[in-house]
Amino acid sequence: MENHFLLPWDNLNTNIRIKLPVVCFTWQIAMIILFGVFVRYDSESDAHWPETMIQNNITSNTENDFYYRYPSFQDVHVMIFVGFGFLMTFLKRYSFSAVGFNFLIASFGIQWALLMQGWFGSLDPSTGKILIGVENLINADFCVAGCLIAFGAVLGKVSPVQLLVMTLFGVTLFAVEEYIILELLHVKDAGGSMVIHAFGGYYGLTISRVLYRPRIHQSKHLQGSVYQSDVFAMIGTLFLWMFWPSFNSAIAYHGDGQHRAVINTYLCLAASVLTTVAISSLSQKTGKLDMVHIQNSTLAGGVALGTAAEFMVSPYGALIVGFLCGILSTMGYIFISKNLKIHDTCGIHNLHAMPGLIGGIVGAITAATANELDYGKQGLINTFGLTGKLQSRSPSTQGGYQAAGICVALAFGIVGGAIVGGILRLPIWGDPADENCYDDEVYWEVPEEDEENPDSIPPILEYNNHMIHKQQEM
Amino acid sequence: MENHFLLPWDNLNTNIRIKLPVVCFTWQIAMIILFGVFVRYDSESDAHWPETMIQNNITSNTENDFYYRYPSFQDVHVMIFVGFGFLMTFLKRYSFSAVGFNFLIASFGIQWALLMQGWFGSLDPSTGKILIGVENLINADFCVAGCLIAFGAVLGKVSPVQLLVMTLFGVTLFAVEEYIILELLHVKDAGGSMVIHAFGGYYGLTISRVLYRPRIHQSKHLQGSVYQSDVFAMIGTLFLWMFWPSFNSAIAYHGDGQHRAVINTYLCLAASVLTTVAISSLSQKTGKLDMVHIQNSTLAGGVALGTAAEFMVSPYGALIVGFLCGILSTMGYIFISKNLKIHDTCGIHNLHAMPGLIGGIVGAITAATANELDYGKQGLINTFGLTGKLQSRSPSTQGGYQAAGICVALAFGIVGGAIVGGILRLPIWGDPADENCYDDEVYWEVPEEDEENPDSIPPILEYNNHMIHKQQEM
Amino acid sequence: MENHFLLPWDNLNTNIRIKLPVVCFTWQIAMIILFGVFVRYDSESDAHWPETMIQNNITSNTENDFYYRYPSFQDVHVMIFVGFGFLMTFLKRYSFSAVGFNFLIASFGIQWALLMQGWFGSLDPSTGKILIGVENLINADFCVAGCLIAFGAVLGKVSPVQLLVMTLFGVTLFAVEEYIILELLHVKDAGGSMVIHAFGGYYGLTISRVLYRPRIHQSKHLQGSVYQSDVFAMIGTLFLWMFWPSFNSAIAYHGDGQHRAVINTYLCLAASVLTTVAISSLSQKTGKLDMVHIQNSTLAGGVALGTAAEFMVSPYGALIVGFLCGILSTMGYIFISKNLKIHDTCGIHNLHAMPGLIGGIVGAITAATANELDYGKQGLINTFGLTGKLQSRSPSTQGGYQAAGICVALAFGIVGGAIVGGILRLPIWGDPADENCYDDEVYWEVPEEDEENPDSIPPILEYNNHMIHKQQEM
Repeated sequence: MENHFLLPWDNLNTNIRIKLPVVCFTWQIAMIILFGVFVRYDSESDAHWPETMIQNNITSNTENDFYYRYPSFQDVHVMIFVGFGFLMTFLKRYSFSAVGFNFLIASFGIQWALLMQGWFGSLDPSTGKILIGVENLINADFCVAGCLIAFGAVLGKVSPVQLLVMTLFGVTLFAVEEYIILELLHVKDAGGSMVIHAFGGYYGLTISRVLYRPRIHQSKHLQGSVYQSDVFAMIGTLFLWMFWPSFNSAIAYHGDGQHRAVINTYLCLAASVLTTVAISSLSQKTGKLDMVHIQNSTLAGGVALGTAAEFMVSPYGALIVGFLCGILSTMGYIFISKNLKIHDTCGIHNLHAMPGLIGGIVGAITAATANELDYGKQGLINTFGLTGKLQSRSPSTQGGYQAAGICVALAFGIVGGAIVGGILRLPIWGDPADENCYDDEVYWEVPEEDEENPDSIPPILEYNNHMIHKQQEM
Repeated sequence: MENHFLLPWDNLNTNIRIKLPVVCFTWQIAMIILFGVFVRYDSESDAHWPETMIQNNITSNTENDFYYRYPSFQDVHVMIFVGFGFLMTFLKRYSFSAVGFNFLIASFGIQWALLMQGWFGSLDPSTGKILIGVENLINADFCVAGCLIAFGAVLGKVSPVQLLVMTLFGVTLFAVEEYIILELLHVKDAGGSMVIHAFGGYYGLTISRVLYRPRIHQSKHLQGSVYQSDVFAMIGTLFLWMFWPSFNSAIAYHGDGQHRAVINTYLCLAASVLTTVAISSLSQKTGKLDMVHIQNSTLAGGVALGTAAEFMVSPYGALIVGFLCGILSTMGYIFISKNLKIHDTCGIHNLHAMPGLIGGIVGAITAATANELDYGKQGLINTFGLTGKLQSRSPSTQGGYQAAGICVALAFGIVGGAIVGGILRLPIWGDPADENCYDDEVYWEVPEEDEENPDSIPPILEYNNHMIHKQQEM
Repeated sequence: MENHFLLPWDNLNTNIRIKLPVVCFTWQIAMIILFGVFVRYDSESDAHWPETMIQNNITSNTENDFYYRYPSFQDVHVMIFVGFGFLMTFLKRYSFSAVGFNFLIASFGIQWALLMQGWFGSLDPSTGKILIGVENLINADFCVAGCLIAFGAVLGKVSPVQLLVMTLFGVTLFAVEEYIILELLHVKDAGGSMVIHAFGGYYGLTISRVLYRPRIHQSKHLQGSVYQSDVFAMIGTLFLWMFWPSFNSAIAYHGDGQHRAVINTYLCLAASVLTTVAISSLSQKTGKLDMVHIQNSTLAGGVALGTAAEFMVSPYGALIVGFLCGILSTMGYIFISKNLKIHDTCGIHNLHAMPGLIGGIVGAITAATANELDYGKQGLINTFGLTGKLQSRSPSTQGGYQAAGICVALAFGIVGGAIVGGILRLPIWGDPADENCYDDEVYWEVPEEDEENPDSIPPILEYNNHMIHKQQEM
């Protein structure tokens, strides 16, 4: 540790002492100003709510949307910060960055998401204000999820400043894409198979491709996991897995919509686990399981039911989706990941991008085949929101629009990723050298490891030193 | 690590490359078919819910059972996957298996539980379909809890294929036992002292006894914990402890039933912590605390109030139960665990089996002494469900039936465990050799530990190698 | 490890084999008796609830306070046990104590809190009984939070017996202080900036000052973190951060009050993260981030909005509070912590005490400037509870009372801490010697570390031993 020459990351290029604070401060001050101009409480979170209740003949506070959505919101919040954060701690020496940068960019992104999504979706036309409530918070978390997925593709290879830039553009693109898909095309995507996962996945993969480092093998020794880091990553996996039913139901229709989305997601995820284990075991000579598969592919079912969770896919339909996605995702890890010129650190292609596309297709098919017998007249209207001028849209037309939504998400992910990737190649963002990738020491004060086992290691070293002297004497 | 001879677990006996995938695939396909034939949404999760509301004069979506039970369901879900999973990570080299196999068998079991419990409890007589809603998901999680408890007794000594077999039979036995206790005997057991904990405990202990390995001491060096694994295990302990009020109240009666079950469990668990600490400290010469006790016995109060949590045991009654169970459970770890020919890896006798019996007895006594003064006329009917042909059952009769329930749970656990244990002794399941027990390497790709401290360890090795050469030169 | 002389902590002074069990048993028995005399279920958790519903014309079980507050309660519960517990695991060799003692004193404290807060707040005048429901459980958790904050200041330097004494007095002082502030002065403080954080912070800091150890540097080698312990601590940080919206809204007014408190806290915390990162990066030569800041200062926004979260601070107001608190808290860690004669182990001055004061001031200002335009007539009454004889209290008067509340909290913290600190200096509590501070081995059975890497370390030692013999032969 007492190197008398400069360590590589002491060079100016990874010094972010000015860049990072400047970006954070500028951004946060901009947020305060924009929130001051634009953002107010909606009618359910404003202190005038008692008057709203009287005006709308609401007799119980339980009708406040808060009570319908808050438990799901908190589950989603855990997925964003603990789920995504810990899932990425699997690298042996990048846990600080995984959890810490995830924390930073999510906190950064949710503020911008509230504004962007507000301008497109919650703007009160009479006052020009964005009115926010608990559903906006959920949507902001959702929006950030797309950026955290993209983070997974470049994990270990970019600086926190680059991550903030990626998130700034990612949230912006997300909000536009979401507006086109959900509002203009009136596509249903409550759990975001297309809007969140396919978009976020291809956005991240394209950026990772543009930032391709031919000599990344120089930090190969840090690209794996260690025993403890794999256990930490399972914390992320499990919180994502357990709370995915909340993710897919959080903004679904009150009542049966939320209820059904939970059941479907619960079943789909369970099936994913079994087929993931099966393929993982098959892929090894002696049938041993691979933690990478268990940590990731078990979640593919949740992604793939993001669109259709609130539809009447029926319980066995949910199981089939989970069955197939567990297989495909695990096979992605075995066959695809290593053969692409992308360095997809977390394998988001197999966990988000591909299952997201599958989810879009499942949604399109189930929407196209929806009928009054399965849903009931009112149920069909509620589930697909076919009111007003959409009253005459048929299920098969809806299916077509759903398919169009997939294309929009893909296009935004790939084109947006290519542009943002180009911006991130500028040599001003403090990214690490090839040999310093996947290493916390570049951006974090890391405690000395030598002190961990004060009893066991140093005596050996001391003894060895002692022997050197002895031998020199000999 | 470059052994040129075969490692013991490379032998065919632990090769599960065919067995595990075959079981997983067969099972999952069977589930899809059976769900296709039998399982549908219930009236509250079906898209026809708006019509149901009109028919039943329901004016608010808040009356959908989803909103009464979903927060508790998610807490229970966390207990099953993070709680049980991480509680078992305490072994130094079995954390992958603890979390991973827990994940596998729970995902496997909940599907079968929905079917088995559905056939016995939720079958719509007119259509022959099982109609599922959020309460069924909770019950499936509960059912699986019994199997995870049994897993704790054999942790480290069986193969994942054996665990799946154990779970298959465990869920089946559970569903029958539960039907007899809850439906035929009409016993109350909302938190499952008898149905879940006593059954699961004795099921696991009996299996562990049947699979007794006289030479298990050959893997003695892996039977303990290390510092980090004990901290990981505390994640499991705390999530179980914190969410146990949800466990005991999740399927309790709406309103005061759920409310009271939470208060009682909260108090009972707090008292358990204090007496566990007291006995743990007393058991050591210098009063030091033992992590095994803190990780396990603090939870005994939750188990022991499983039956009576929704009864009017009164707050001090809950404290007394917790007080006693903390003492008894900790003493179990000190005196009983080491003297039984069972190798109860996690000490489930002290955490589940014995406290489960106590819980059954507490439930029988409090039921027998229930009266209209304490409960009110309607409260007594609601709490014990004494409607219809049970209208005339007196509290003391109910107490008798409660006691009978204990016997049923015990009988199913012990007899079922003996039979299943016999099946698991067949030499076809890929179980590990005595010297490879408690070792993740048998069933998992484990990352190389040497790379963990690239700075500290390898130089020493290199130096030593260097010295060998030097000395050879000398 | 085979020391043939006595280790320092084997001396009688840290032997707590009699003290700890005696305190635990005495206390728990006292609790059972006092609960037996005083504590009963309130009308919403009593089995007579069906009758209460009829009497009060309540038509739906959803109106039971349980359903308004239970999800928030469970989140708060996680903050208390996992949040505070794991936040303190950052020390390299004090994780057992951090999690374990946190568990012990919280379980001990909540029981006493239910009694103390009950006597002051929930006593039924006609029967002399304390009637408890879910809101009491939340308040008990809140009360204990104050003591856990104080624990952070003395972490590693006191015995569990001292912690129990600290908690006993802490809860008592808390209940009196809370009664004066909330009931007598009728100050609003739903998230406890003053009542919990300022009080708990100054209580702990004063005790730590009184217990000042001039020779604490003797255990300096254990005062830092290691890589894994910092990751564990992030579990605590994130669960605190994610669930803080629940903390600040748990006992807020039904409907818009809870809804608004969540939105404000969510925004405030997000802003804290960005300014914490900015200042942390600025404080290091190369802009590297410091885990201590990320683990703690990111939470300051939640503390500082404890009083005002349910007020109409408006979304940008919440961002401003978070912006400033992130800066001030991080600067506290950089400039203040090391210069005080306090040894504030967890830096609670910067995370709780100072932000708590800021929170009190923010609350006073926003209360003083409240008006009917912003709140509506009924909203103003609901938010500040200005009914009955308080009907005529103006917002500016309320602001004055809020300011008075800060002083009461401070006074109780400092004076109470001085007295309790004096008591804790008595040489009877089994506290550790200076050189044994921050070491789990004093109070816990710690597993042997040498066994952790059975493959890598022992061979080296063996080889070295082998060489010693060889050399002796030479």
